[in-house]
Amino acid sequence: MTKIIRPTLVVDKEICLRNIERMAQKAANYNLRFRPHFKTHQSLKAGEWFRLFGVEAITVSSVQMAEYFAGGGWKDITVAFPVNILEIDNINRLASEIKLGLLVENTEAATFLAKHVLFPVNVWIKIDTGNYRTGIDPHDDVLLEDVIKQVVAGENLTFKGFLTHSGHTYSAHSVDEIFNRHFDALLKLKSLKQKYITQFPGVEISIGDTPGATLCTNFNGVDEIRPGNFVFYDLMQQNLGVCTFGDIAVKMVCPVVAKHISRNEIVIHGGAVHFSKDEIRNIDGKKMFGRIIITKDGEKNMLDQMNYLSKLSQEHGILKVAQNQFQNFNVGDLVEIIPVHSCLTANLMGHYRTTEGELIEMMPKF
Amino acid sequence: MTKIIRPTLVVDKEICLRNIERMAQKAANYNLRFRPHFKTHQSLKAGEWFRLFGVEAITVSSVQMAEYFAGGGWKDITVAFPVNILEIDNINRLASEIKLGLLVENTEAATFLAKHVLFPVNVWIKIDTGNYRTGIDPHDDVLLEDVIKQVVAGENLTFKGFLTHSGHTYSAHSVDEIFNRHFDALLKLKSLKQKYITQFPGVEISIGDTPGATLCTNFNGVDEIRPGNFVFYDLMQQNLGVCTFGDIAVKMVCPVVAKHISRNEIVIHGGAVHFSKDEIRNIDGKKMFGRIIITKDGEKNMLDQMNYLSKLSQEHGILKVAQNQFQNFNVGDLVEIIPVHSCLTANLMGHYRTTEGELIEMMPKF
Repeated sequence: MTKIIRPTLVVDKEICLRNIERMAQKAANYNLRFRPHFKTHQSLKAGEWFRLFGVEAITVSSVQMAEYFAGGGWKDITVAFPVNILEIDNINRLASEIKLGLLVENTEAATFLAKHVLFPVNVWIKIDTGNYRTGIDPHDDVLLEDVIKQVVAGENLTFKGFLTHSGHTYSAHSVDEIFNRHFDALLKLKSLKQKYITQFPGVEISIGDTPGATLCTNFNGVDEIRPGNFVFYDLMQQNLGVCTFGDIAVKMVCPVVAKHISRNEIVIHGGAVHFSKDEIRNIDGKKMFGRIIITKDGEKNMLDQMNYLSKLSQEHGILKVAQNQFQNFNVGDLVEIIPVHSCLTANLMGHYRTTEGELIEMMPKF
Repeated sequence: MTKIIRPTLVVDKEICLRNIERMAQKAANYNLRFRPHFKTHQSLKAGEWFRLFGVEAITVSSVQMAEYFAGGGWKDITVAFPVNILEIDNINRLASEIKLGLLVENTEAATFLAKHVLFPVNVWIKIDTGNYRTGIDPHDDVLLEDVIKQVVAGENLTFKGFLTHSGHTYSAHSVDEIFNRHFDALLKLKSLKQKYITQFPGVEISIGDTPGATLCTNFNGVDEIRPGNFVFYDLMQQNLGVCTFGDIAVKMVCPVVAKHISRNEIVIHGGAVHFSKDEIRNIDGKKMFGRIIITKDGEKNMLDQMNYLSKLSQEHGILKVAQNQFQNFNVGDLVEIIPVHSCLTANLMGHYRTTEGELIEMMPKF
């Protein structure tokens, strides 16, 4: 491939295909609709990789992203974000062209959609299963009834079911805790399904997080899964116990520009405008923004946790490096960094390259 | 202007012009070359605003950014980042077209440039005046001599002087501390200038940070200032005491999508892909990502510190809102948020609009 001279996001397509295949197979095994979230890769070209495994329905996180993928031929798209009613004209345009799914979680938005949506749209009710970000409390019967009533009143709206994003699996302290939170979310959604299935025989359950979708084996009552990050995975997922290093498809390749032995630091071109400032705690209690892979005698080597990306400013990255590794870094070298959060890193970079050098363009920013 | 329906970065051009004029005037008063850093606005169109005040020399943070601005007619550009020697072909192309300044801070890079630079280039030696990110310790005579020797040996290299970025003014706890750190950096650079002025009669001093350039009044011995953030300022600078709210030219305009009164939270469309995860501490000890301005009865109102942008995920922003303000937010409203770090916010957005609605395009990501 072209020689890398600047911070570059490199994606191993083979690993992506393996990750997609594994998740598609798992969905098939559990008889689940596989509606992957495309906010991680944000790319029409990477989207095509999913078609190889029969994917036809997708999830996105904004109307803008729905427009981008609809423009690339995707015909069945759920916007998994509480509907932004200011986008009504764009929503109607999309609804006239594709099978569109929207999320509501309050009466105001439901009432607005019922009145203003001009073409058939599927409406999911967002349930808060413990993430406390958005969604209706599954025990809030009054609000649930009210929102459903509004949706049913909408001539062009079809009440599709209950949807959650158990994002609190990301803050779990162990794999057991991921299982517990997943199972707890399942129980909450299943009881809603039970409650409404007589009134709405087709009512569905859709769940979304990569940790639960990857690890868990109980999908009783679930109709659809919407994981996204799994296509790339990242250090956060590895750190949670969700994937192995071998499952991570992304790395940033960055030039070494300076060495400061007095403080055991290596400076790379690769900063907050490349990685994003998402962090995890390192074994030494400090912030960590990435793990380091070096090439020595033609062989790739991931360094241990005492060597890591420890600081980011706009364009600079600072590697903390153990004394015995210091001489393995030279000005002008390229180092590979496994980023903490692949979604935000890809979003910042705006494009990436496969290991073979193919350019993968992403959704334009506007 | 066009109705805003999505997260949008809006820049008040009048405030920018005032900020630029004030800094240009200050530079003139102190007889300093004004070489503003363009990494904040990253835009050819915004760059033109500086020409109105006589700016002809600029600073950027990467060779890529130098190429972008050179393409827009800028002829005198310093890349204020330790030179990335892998970019040598691009450096030579630029050096053949414009007056290019580079930074070195180690022998390896200096030696490489001396050997490989094919057109005249100005070389600055980066001095670490206490920021501990990059640069040579001003007391490290051996390394300084060595690097200068390599630069002087380079046929196409001109040793220009000593340059620092006193980025540690950003972590100051008071305005006094900013003054102290600025003055300390000045003393270090002046003693270097004294030491080398006989050998290099034209040796210069260049300093860079917005806090020091804005607040301080002692520029004794300084030849050039390179502030960047001042064109927009932001919440971080206001919080440091560097600017007033009235000096801040940027705000994110975001739609309200949900309300959760049980936890005093408002959900907006506007997340980590819009704001960046740079944070400051709020008065309540919690992370804060922005301050909130609402419009009520046609009047704009900045809410107090108990109302703030408290959490960010990829597309979601969570506003913590005091009970007595809660009813002032409605689904479908637009709120304005003053971001913590305008450089990273603009970089993420990839474009912005003036208050009058003019589209300001930025450097493409590749």
